[in-house]
Amino acid sequence: MKDSIMEQSIQLFAQKGFKETSIQDIVGELNVTKGTFYYYYKSKEELLMDIHLQYIERLLENQEAILADESKSCQQKLHDIIFKLIHDIEKEGLRAKVFFREIRHLSPQHLEHIIPKRDRFKENVQQVVEEGMRNGQFRSDLPPDIVTLGILGVTNWSYFWFQPNGEKSDREVAAIFYEMLINGIKAE
Amino acid sequence: MKDSIMEQSIQLFAQKGFKETSIQDIVGELNVTKGTFYYYYKSKEELLMDIHLQYIERLLENQEAILADESKSCQQKLHDIIFKLIHDIEKEGLRAKVFFREIRHLSPQHLEHIIPKRDRFKENVQQVVEEGMRNGQFRSDLPPDIVTLGILGVTNWSYFWFQPNGEKSDREVAAIFYEMLINGIKAE
Repeated sequence: MKDSIMEQSIQLFAQKGFKETSIQDIVGELNVTKGTFYYYYKSKEELLMDIHLQYIERLLENQEAILADESKSCQQKLHDIIFKLIHDIEKEGLRAKVFFREIRHLSPQHLEHIIPKRDRFKENVQQVVEEGMRNGQFRSDLPPDIVTLGILGVTNWSYFWFQPNGEKSDREVAAIFYEMLINGIKAE
Repeated sequence: MKDSIMEQSIQLFAQKGFKETSIQDIVGELNVTKGTFYYYYKSKEELLMDIHLQYIERLLENQEAILADESKSCQQKLHDIIFKLIHDIEKEGLRAKVFFREIRHLSPQHLEHIIPKRDRFKENVQQVVEEGMRNGQFRSDLPPDIVTLGILGVTNWSYFWFQPNGEKSDREVAAIFYEMLINGIKAE
């Protein structure tokens, strides 16, 4: 039931907005009582926080599995991070929408749990970039922090436009972005 | 007065959210009456639409001035589009925040005015990419639409993190992004 409450809320928050969705709306869709809601969550804010936490923790888990694979070069790790993010849009797209748009509704106490994880997500990408610069796979004349923000721009923005059932597959889009970031778009 | 109402609303919408800001909040900050508000705008929705329209129209105007400059190569045009967007964050950052976050509060009739302009912004970048592919400045083995979305990811995302008074200037960040997109991050 806890999972159903979360899934239903993600739908409603994405569609109507966090403020515009009442606890009654959520339990109404599930045909349960408010009591059921309060058995699992103290408030709508706590639920929102849980959505954010689960979203970022899954991202981190996937990302850190890629980072930990010592058989992979930094270039491969970069490719796999890009692919995984785009691949997950189908499953995680609504959750991401709620994450980016509704984060301002979290209280400072709740944000304290989220911000360090969000920062870690960025730092993990930067770690791959820096390692690649050290071992000669990436050029070392560009600042790794700005390069990282460029990479995150390309991937995070795709949440706003990528259609999982569209013309190009997740694998194709990831390959194009990887190629563009690695070799650039200038003609030889 | 119309400009003050708009500037004040952008501040409040960015800070508190569109739904959470009342017309009373806006006129209260300006020490005027609701009558003054209604002299200029029929509703809060109309004001939001005006904010969006002005934002996207200015972006288009700047972008199309760059495109029209025949003395510039496609590479230079791409650089200038990136620079102009990052340069404008200081001035347009709040407006952009309201644009991206509150667009769902616009009615379909209002969206009809915005969407074609937003699409044109993307098409203009794609036009530079395609022209550069034709004239041999950009490689032609990547699909121009996805390349364009990658470029827009890099620039649009910077609205979420670029600090105009931070360590790196708008010019430096734009130069790094341009270099990264043009030549890639792989070591020679």
